[in-house]
Amino acid sequence: MEIIPDSLEWQACYKLLVGCVVPRPIAFVSTRSADGVRNLAAFSFFNGVCPKPFILSVAPMFRADGRKKDTLRNIEETGQFVVNVVDDPLVQRMNLTAPEFPPEVDEFEISGLTPIPSRAVRPPRVAESPIQMECERVQILQFGDGPGGGFLVLGRVVCVHVRDELWAGDRIDGARWTPVGRMAGDEYTRATDRFRLRRPPLPDTYR
Amino acid sequence: MEIIPDSLEWQACYKLLVGCVVPRPIAFVSTRSADGVRNLAAFSFFNGVCPKPFILSVAPMFRADGRKKDTLRNIEETGQFVVNVVDDPLVQRMNLTAPEFPPEVDEFEISGLTPIPSRAVRPPRVAESPIQMECERVQILQFGDGPGGGFLVLGRVVCVHVRDELWAGDRIDGARWTPVGRMAGDEYTRATDRFRLRRPPLPDTYR
Repeated sequence: MEIIPDSLEWQACYKLLVGCVVPRPIAFVSTRSADGVRNLAAFSFFNGVCPKPFILSVAPMFRADGRKKDTLRNIEETGQFVVNVVDDPLVQRMNLTAPEFPPEVDEFEISGLTPIPSRAVRPPRVAESPIQMECERVQILQFGDGPGGGFLVLGRVVCVHVRDELWAGDRIDGARWTPVGRMAGDEYTRATDRFRLRRPPLPDTYR
Repeated sequence: MEIIPDSLEWQACYKLLVGCVVPRPIAFVSTRSADGVRNLAAFSFFNGVCPKPFILSVAPMFRADGRKKDTLRNIEETGQFVVNVVDDPLVQRMNLTAPEFPPEVDEFEISGLTPIPSRAVRPPRVAESPIQMECERVQILQFGDGPGGGFLVLGRVVCVHVRDELWAGDRIDGARWTPVGRMAGDEYTRATDRFRLRRPPLPDTYR
């Protein structure tokens, strides 16, 4: 099956993209508008970029009505956001924030999740999230100019909060929590079916 | 536990980043140097950006010796790459390409994987991969200037190949394959522990 994305409508391209790139990590992003209204929204076009500088990328698409999402507007206005990591106990309440509420709605209130102050930025963290990363905007790129297009927000992580039970002295212990990834459609996956693969050594002939 | 990334060495930041952002999708990237040498390498700082234009991002870090990876140099030289998606049957052979071989080594030969011609770009696809996305470079951003830093490659997908058994008429059927995601350290996860969560409707009071 051979598909030329340029020949498809954006909705078909979206369906293809979310089916091809899986499992995707989830950024549950908290922001604050210039007026002080809190916002919470989940994004799965999200990943690390590099560790030093410690950069993350989050890509909020245009809304289907062609407008910018509140998360993006808030980051444009204030330059700050928090990426709250999502585990299995949090995912149901995260989903309560998914409808496109008007900008004046605070999704912390909608979801019953608990805002707690950040250390270096104004948007609050989600207390129920096991790992929270406070970010300062570095750059925002735009692709396209309406539905199907979107923005790539690059942020520098200035402070990371890790729940004490997950911390193993010099790293996060993956055995102590259950991250959730995003699949296509309504589907998610728990990262439970794990295995180890050691990188082979470089053969002596190439040294 | 509160961590300020700026106070850590890049290796500690790397360990933190790969522990926080999980599960990560895997881009098994095939390229070709200007001289025609093929390369294959896996990256997990990878995701979709938006569907129209159909944009992917892949972030190759600097090597520990401060040099650029072959994948990045090849994309700089030729502007083209293929993202081969990784499923459970492919992951062991993918891992054979992980050592940092010299640029003249063809990882297709090292791994025994099968190069097949692409439709729109010169780098070959990996026949054993269930989904292959042919990409043209759009932009490359750089962060930092040595170990710990890296590059963000943005590519536009010009052609997608989907194995016929996975195609359900208008989308990829997630039940017909087993994607693999990257965790921290040597760990991977199969995306098998799935569940569905329907996005709640927007309450009438907000319409």
